[in-house]
Amino acid sequence: MSGPESARASEEALIARYFAPLAGEGAEALRDDAARLTPAPGHDLVLTADAVVAGIHYFPEDPAGSVAVKALGVNLSDLAAKGARPRGFLLTLALPPDWTEGWLAAFAAGLGQAAVRHAFPLLGGDTVRSGGATLISVTAIGEVPAGAMVRRTSASAGDRICVSGTIGDAALGLRLRLDPGAAWIRRLDAGARAHLADRYLHPRPRLALAPLLRRFASAAMDVSDGLVGDLGKMLAGTGLTARVACAAVPLSPAAARAAAADPAAFEAALTGGDDYEILCTVPPAALDAFAEAAAEAGVPVRPIGTVVAGAGAPVFLGADGRPLGFARGAFSHF
Amino acid sequence: MSGPESARASEEALIARYFAPLAGEGAEALRDDAARLTPAPGHDLVLTADAVVAGIHYFPEDPAGSVAVKALGVNLSDLAAKGARPRGFLLTLALPPDWTEGWLAAFAAGLGQAAVRHAFPLLGGDTVRSGGATLISVTAIGEVPAGAMVRRTSASAGDRICVSGTIGDAALGLRLRLDPGAAWIRRLDAGARAHLADRYLHPRPRLALAPLLRRFASAAMDVSDGLVGDLGKMLAGTGLTARVACAAVPLSPAAARAAAADPAAFEAALTGGDDYEILCTVPPAALDAFAEAAAEAGVPVRPIGTVVAGAGAPVFLGADGRPLGFARGAFSHF
Repeated sequence: MSGPESARASEEALIARYFAPLAGEGAEALRDDAARLTPAPGHDLVLTADAVVAGIHYFPEDPAGSVAVKALGVNLSDLAAKGARPRGFLLTLALPPDWTEGWLAAFAAGLGQAAVRHAFPLLGGDTVRSGGATLISVTAIGEVPAGAMVRRTSASAGDRICVSGTIGDAALGLRLRLDPGAAWIRRLDAGARAHLADRYLHPRPRLALAPLLRRFASAAMDVSDGLVGDLGKMLAGTGLTARVACAAVPLSPAAARAAAADPAAFEAALTGGDDYEILCTVPPAALDAFAEAAAEAGVPVRPIGTVVAGAGAPVFLGADGRPLGFARGAFSHF
Repeated sequence: MSGPESARASEEALIARYFAPLAGEGAEALRDDAARLTPAPGHDLVLTADAVVAGIHYFPEDPAGSVAVKALGVNLSDLAAKGARPRGFLLTLALPPDWTEGWLAAFAAGLGQAAVRHAFPLLGGDTVRSGGATLISVTAIGEVPAGAMVRRTSASAGDRICVSGTIGDAALGLRLRLDPGAAWIRRLDAGARAHLADRYLHPRPRLALAPLLRRFASAAMDVSDGLVGDLGKMLAGTGLTARVACAAVPLSPAAARAAAADPAAFEAALTGGDDYEILCTVPPAALDAFAEAAAEAGVPVRPIGTVVAGAGAPVFLGADGRPLGFARGAFSHF
C-alpha cells in the first residue's frame, strides 16, 4: 500500500514532457481530467480497448518504441476491421518499480510517431505504478458513417472468406525468439528471419481497407489470435461454418519456406497469433471488385474459402483435399 | 513470455458469463471487437480514463465488489465534475496468476450493481494476465450538451471556491487501516471508524451535481489527490491563486473529532486523496442559487474560499487567520 509520497509533481511533469505533445483537439493539452469528442455529423463512434503486458504480449527487452507501436497497432487493427477511421485514443500506462525515464522517452517517441502517422491523437489517460510488469492499455476511438460499422458475426452462407496480406509471419517471428534452435529456422536466411521478427514486433494495421470493408464486406474482424481460431469465433453461434483451402492461405516467402521445411511451422502460421491482418467475408458477386479496390489501396486480399451452412468449427482442407486437424485451435494471450 | 496455450475458450467463457450481462446497446453483447456509440443530437462526448491497482489504490484484501465500485466510482467522479451524464465504459482487467473465479464473480457482481445504479453500461474491454498485481483500467464516456463540458482551469478572480459533501474522510479511512494504533483513532467510536473506512472503500460520485456545474460553475474538477494539491492544480498556470479558510472546509463529525484530537489528522484530511467530492468555482452572484439547487439535489456544497489574482500555491488560512504550511502538497498514487 502506498503511503504518503511527494512524487505527484513528477507524474505531472512526465505528462507535460512526454504526453502533452501528443494531445489532440478537445484534450486540453492533458491539463483537464477529461477530453471532449464529437463525431462528424452523420457518423457513429467506434470504441475498442486492448492491452499489452510485458512478458505476455511482448518481450520485456523489446525496444520501447516498438512496444508503443504494438500497443497502438493492435487497437488500430480493430478499428480497421470495423471499417472505422481513427479519431483518437486514451492510454493507461502502468509502470513497474524499476521504470526509467529513458524507457519512457523512447516509448513516448514511438507512440508519437505512430499517432502522427495514423492521425490518431492522444485524448487522455492515466499513469500508475503497476505493482509488477509494465502494462499498456489503450482505448481506441474511431468513426464510421452512421450504421456502417462492419460487424463480426454477420456473414451469410455462400460468402467468400478473404484475408489481407500474409498470414503467420508474426507467429513464426515469435517462435523464432522462443525457440531459436528449431530446425526450420536454420533453413531461413537472415532476411527471412528479419522479416518474421519484424512482423511480430510491428503490427501493420490495415486502415487502408477500412472504407472498402464498409463497401464490400458482409462481416469482418482482425486476425489477432490466429486464423483458425478467429474464423471459428467469427462464425460461432451463427449457424454457419466454413471450408478453407490451406493452399490458398497467403504466406510470405519466409513463411512459405518455413512451412515447407516443417509442417509444425505451417500449423503455427495458421493457429498462432499477432497477424493483425483483416479476415472478412464478401458476397461472391463483390469479390472481384473488392480485390481490385484493395490492390489499388495497396493491400492485397485473397479468397481462401467459403462460408457454408452448418455447425462445428471451420474445416481447413490440405493439399490432398482432406481436412487438417490442429493440435490447438487458437492462440491465447490470457 | 506466454507460449502456446489452449485457454482461450476460457477467456471467452468468462466474458460471456460475467461481463456480457453488463453490455449496453451498441456493444453487441461483447461478441464483437468494438462497440458503436453516438452522442445524442447536439451533444459532445466526454472521455476520461483512470486505473486502480491492487496494493497501490486499494488493499488486495478489499472485497472484490468494493474494488469494482471504486474502479467505476473514480471515473464517474471525473464525469460528474465535467458536468457529464454517464453513457458507458470500457474495462481492461489485468488478473494476476493466482486469480480465482470467486473473486471475478464478486467483482462482476459489484460492477454490475454500480453500472445499473448509474445507467452506465459496459461497452467493451480486454481481459489479460497482469504479470503481477490486479489492475483495473476504466475508460468512462459521458455526454454533455455541445460545448458545455465544465473545464478545470477556467476560473476567474473573485469566484468563490466550493466543495461538495465533506473533505478528508477517505484519507482518514486509509490511515485508519495503515496505522490503526494512532492516538486520534482511539478517540473515535466504532460508528465513526466505520464511516471513515467506508468513505475510503466506496467513492460516491457526485453525479447529481453535474447539471448544476454546467449551469453555475466557472470551473470544476473532482478531489482525488487531496483538496490542497487539487486546488493548486486547478489554478496552476492561470495567473490565479486562492485564499481558503480552513475552518470553512466541511468535515464529517468523524473527521472533525479526529482533527480536534490531532492536528496531523486535520492535515491528512486536507492533503490526503480519495475524497471524490467536487471542487468548483462559482461567480459570487451565482453562489446562493448554486447552493440552493445543490441542496435540493441532495448534495450539500459549501464555499471555502475565493479565487484571487496572483501567483503561487493557494493559501490555506488557520483559525488565527495565519497561513498554514503543509508538510506535503498532495497525495500521489503514482
